[in-house]
Amino acid sequence: MKIEEDQEIICGFNVVEAVLNLSPKSSKTLFVLESKSSSRVERISSLALSNEVQVLSKTKDFFLTYCKDQNHQGFALLCTKRKEENESLLDNLLEKESLLLLILDHITDPHNVGACLRSAAAANVDAVIVPKNRSCHLTPTVRKISSGGSELVPFIIVTNLVRMIKKMKQSDVNIIGAEKSGEIDYKEVVLGKKSALVIGSEDKGLKKLTSENCDTLIRIDIPGGVESLNASVACGILLFEFVSKSKNFI
Amino acid sequence: MKIEEDQEIICGFNVVEAVLNLSPKSSKTLFVLESKSSSRVERISSLALSNEVQVLSKTKDFFLTYCKDQNHQGFALLCTKRKEENESLLDNLLEKESLLLLILDHITDPHNVGACLRSAAAANVDAVIVPKNRSCHLTPTVRKISSGGSELVPFIIVTNLVRMIKKMKQSDVNIIGAEKSGEIDYKEVVLGKKSALVIGSEDKGLKKLTSENCDTLIRIDIPGGVESLNASVACGILLFEFVSKSKNFI
Repeated sequence: MKIEEDQEIICGFNVVEAVLNLSPKSSKTLFVLESKSSSRVERISSLALSNEVQVLSKTKDFFLTYCKDQNHQGFALLCTKRKEENESLLDNLLEKESLLLLILDHITDPHNVGACLRSAAAANVDAVIVPKNRSCHLTPTVRKISSGGSELVPFIIVTNLVRMIKKMKQSDVNIIGAEKSGEIDYKEVVLGKKSALVIGSEDKGLKKLTSENCDTLIRIDIPGGVESLNASVACGILLFEFVSKSKNFI
Repeated sequence: MKIEEDQEIICGFNVVEAVLNLSPKSSKTLFVLESKSSSRVERISSLALSNEVQVLSKTKDFFLTYCKDQNHQGFALLCTKRKEENESLLDNLLEKESLLLLILDHITDPHNVGACLRSAAAANVDAVIVPKNRSCHLTPTVRKISSGGSELVPFIIVTNLVRMIKKMKQSDVNIIGAEKSGEIDYKEVVLGKKSALVIGSEDKGLKKLTSENCDTLIRIDIPGGVESLNASVACGILLFEFVSKSKNFI
């Protein structure tokens, strides 16, 4: 099978259904494991057909070749790659009156980036921003783990994260970094109309220069014996605290 | 190399350091990638030696054989498997005056179980409980992802989850299930002195019988376009809401 340069195969029921629902025009061919027969197969096949997406029955070998060790659950989709955005989109976003951004400061694990993207979509974040280098971008695994989040939230790659943070500050975005030694308990944080949450890497947290350029550093106090939380878990806790605060605000 | 039946190899800096710190007696041999030389290598080697753990320098091929596609970062540890507990430990725990338990209702992804275990350790959860069948147990990957959480929190396998939940209720444990259609917003939940949080599987949420046996069903309202959160992210949000509530309580 020929896969064009701007195409990729994504594997797994949730992400295939999400892409068919949210980006039907980007979907080319749905592959279903030949032995599979269930209400899920029917549901997703008719979703594909109603969007004029071809449905093909394929062998186990096909899934082994194209999904490798991913948990494909008997579903794969050939689709256009999800477009990564550049800084010009951010320029447009900065003109909005209210804004919630998520910045991932050199997170490299696709599971973490995918889960952050899913939480970002759940929390109605306007965009996720990651640096160009030493950072995980929008791979098929990230799309899969995000369970549709990748189709909903723009994913912006910036060349220089610190320069971009400085630019955001000039547009009155309140930059809130998550750091173990942050001076403010996350429950006490006051959100501006425009805010950006910055989550550091799995190993090392925020980079020194990133941290120095934050307006506020918040912490999650950990009563137990581990030093820190998983990056995507910390991200979820903080985003949903923000969601809850903005509800109270309204 | 001979690996005994009760031993396993765990890979990656954080988990190796955590096991050396928290379970030094279970640690047998530390393997470091031969080309590696950094402050981390020095730190972890002297930690190993101070606990009378042998340190060996190994080639890339060794890591390829024993860590496979795991992100080993040049560190591996031969150690005793972390013991999974059985129901008798739970019987002892139920006699405590205050208790916070985490029940994972058929979660199968080791990344999710590992991240839940890490959050559980962070939140001072007394034990994590999982069913014997169709559920991910305490594998090396789970230990790795939990970043030391697996060494701190007992991991209890139970044969029949619903029977166990009924038993907990008889010991005045308040069973709080997380469900999309839960009647109570998670921020409004009132914790008992003894509580158990139940998190459902990635795909299907709580099983019907589990859900029916909960005292309270709580939900996380999602303003954005995805249907649900990652199981370990939801778990983290809820556990840390509980932590915050118990702080206010004191």
